[in-house]
Amino acid sequence: MRIAIGLGCDRGTPLATLAQAVDEAIAQAGLADAEVVAAASITLKADEPGLCGLARSRGWPLRFYPAELLMEVAVPNPSETVRRYTGTPSVSEAAALLAAQAEDATALIVEKHRVKGADGRNATVSIARANPHNCLFSAAERQTAQRLLAARRDMRHFQPGCRVDEASLERLQTALMQAPSVGLMQPWRVLRITDPALRERLAGIVNREREETARAMGEREAAFRALKVEGVREAAELWAVVLAPDDGTLFGRRTMPDEMAWCSVGAAVQNLWLAARAENLGLGWVSLFEPQALADALGLPPGAMPLGLLCIGPVAAFYPGPMLTLAGWRSPREAGALFGENRWAFAAPEHTG
Amino acid sequence: MRIAIGLGCDRGTPLATLAQAVDEAIAQAGLADAEVVAAASITLKADEPGLCGLARSRGWPLRFYPAELLMEVAVPNPSETVRRYTGTPSVSEAAALLAAQAEDATALIVEKHRVKGADGRNATVSIARANPHNCLFSAAERQTAQRLLAARRDMRHFQPGCRVDEASLERLQTALMQAPSVGLMQPWRVLRITDPALRERLAGIVNREREETARAMGEREAAFRALKVEGVREAAELWAVVLAPDDGTLFGRRTMPDEMAWCSVGAAVQNLWLAARAENLGLGWVSLFEPQALADALGLPPGAMPLGLLCIGPVAAFYPGPMLTLAGWRSPREAGALFGENRWAFAAPEHTG
Repeated sequence: MRIAIGLGCDRGTPLATLAQAVDEAIAQAGLADAEVVAAASITLKADEPGLCGLARSRGWPLRFYPAELLMEVAVPNPSETVRRYTGTPSVSEAAALLAAQAEDATALIVEKHRVKGADGRNATVSIARANPHNCLFSAAERQTAQRLLAARRDMRHFQPGCRVDEASLERLQTALMQAPSVGLMQPWRVLRITDPALRERLAGIVNREREETARAMGEREAAFRALKVEGVREAAELWAVVLAPDDGTLFGRRTMPDEMAWCSVGAAVQNLWLAARAENLGLGWVSLFEPQALADALGLPPGAMPLGLLCIGPVAAFYPGPMLTLAGWRSPREAGALFGENRWAFAAPEHTG
Repeated sequence: MRIAIGLGCDRGTPLATLAQAVDEAIAQAGLADAEVVAAASITLKADEPGLCGLARSRGWPLRFYPAELLMEVAVPNPSETVRRYTGTPSVSEAAALLAAQAEDATALIVEKHRVKGADGRNATVSIARANPHNCLFSAAERQTAQRLLAARRDMRHFQPGCRVDEASLERLQTALMQAPSVGLMQPWRVLRITDPALRERLAGIVNREREETARAMGEREAAFRALKVEGVREAAELWAVVLAPDDGTLFGRRTMPDEMAWCSVGAAVQNLWLAARAENLGLGWVSLFEPQALADALGLPPGAMPLGLLCIGPVAAFYPGPMLTLAGWRSPREAGALFGENRWAFAAPEHTG
């Protein structure tokens, strides 16, 4: 069962008191930590250290609802005292029901479990069954998702001569089709390369661009040449991803037609990438090619543009980190160089190869 | 425990015989179906209907290794007969070890479990413990990943006035930082909008473009106006995603510098999108704005370009399908319109709004 936790507490309630209340309530209901889809409280408590610390330590998403939302939820135990202090007659019950996306109060498994700490401060916990129709993810499932995002790699080393079954390929297609796209335009097309002569021709095109790139690298040419940059010949599967000729979609791209089409292709490939990783298959996105050469080889019509050769297949092992970093080519940026607030205040980029 | 299944069989072995062999071997080892990271056999059997049918019905990725790879794996029970027929002294043991990414044969839990069906045909099953260092995903975990990809939605309806805890936001940042980018360039920057006046200004910019788009829609103007297209004012969080000024990365983008930067932004946002969905938070990518107006509001330097306003926050419910489809605006394409083989043979696009 998946559950949501509603939390109320006095100002300054220690994490230990909140943890005790939550653990008792979960145990009382015969449930487990790993089943929690979210914890929730009132916006008034958004800066409450005990609440935030508890959710952080358990990996539970914590959200805060305003009194105006909470007061609209029908609950079994409304309280006039709570209303006087918070503006809503229920915090923990109402927050649990909202976080559970519950249809009504029958979803409550634990109505109000209250613990008074040694310091006299009170914590109240409610537990609601997550709406089974709404596909909410539990703590255990979230951990799997996080592990998947962390384990995905741009692979260039594949076990040669392998094949993948059709059912796996269909599941990968499904992942692509589930990807978002601006205005639902789905601007990408995929050509599965099954003709060995065509694959060989594509490998040649990639190799030529590898040479051109190497020459353009200047002082990093030797370092670049030492890298394995693609697995076009070895990978079990080779899929060409192509931007389709524009279908005129206006929705969400009147002002940025090309940008939004390309972003949509990137998002779709990322869905595929993660689906492949969940199949324990490697995927490498190769963009080392002259687009016109690839367009000729694939017989693309005017307006279509190849954006990637995707190498997909079994690997001996996944890299433990980004290959370009392991190989000493380049390190990822720190969070501070990527995230800011309100207005641009980032340093100018350093030029790199 | 996570396990890999190696399979060998006579030509034409029925699915039922293979299923019996697999079920017996898994039960013998005290294991479960849901723990399987992959099934594997030899390329020679890539068209074997029983094998493919079994893997399909269980949702196991099935891969086929060539004899040259299998013969290099040290196994406890090599067979001269098997070598004569297949070119490798072991199929099931070697395939299980390869699919498990095992370091050596000590990973075998079940060496060779053989079942002779009523028709006299033999199936052989080996089971290997998946390499615990290589982060392989089990059938149960794969199902979670598939559910996540299927459940992600472009959300426009948010619960107003909510807040999200810092720990959730940090996990979302981590997901963005784990995204791939061509040459590891990480071309995206994120500005978290915390200034209410700035958010209001951005909402106004979006609303103006909504008007412009509506007017450009022609006969679909009224239908477009009936859609809810953004949640900029209501969502708990508003993040602006910006393409950074070019840092000169050559790797993988000598021939397609802009395309690869934009694709990388799209892939990064998709990672964030899935991480948010795993937190049971909605995310909507809003691209209805005049880029220059947004650049002015955010104080962007020359060369930087805003690509999205991401609305993130609690929602009352996730749409059961793409909102544009539920609202009757547009349907996704069929697989046949998106996937082809070797050379372009798709129909020309129909113009759409």
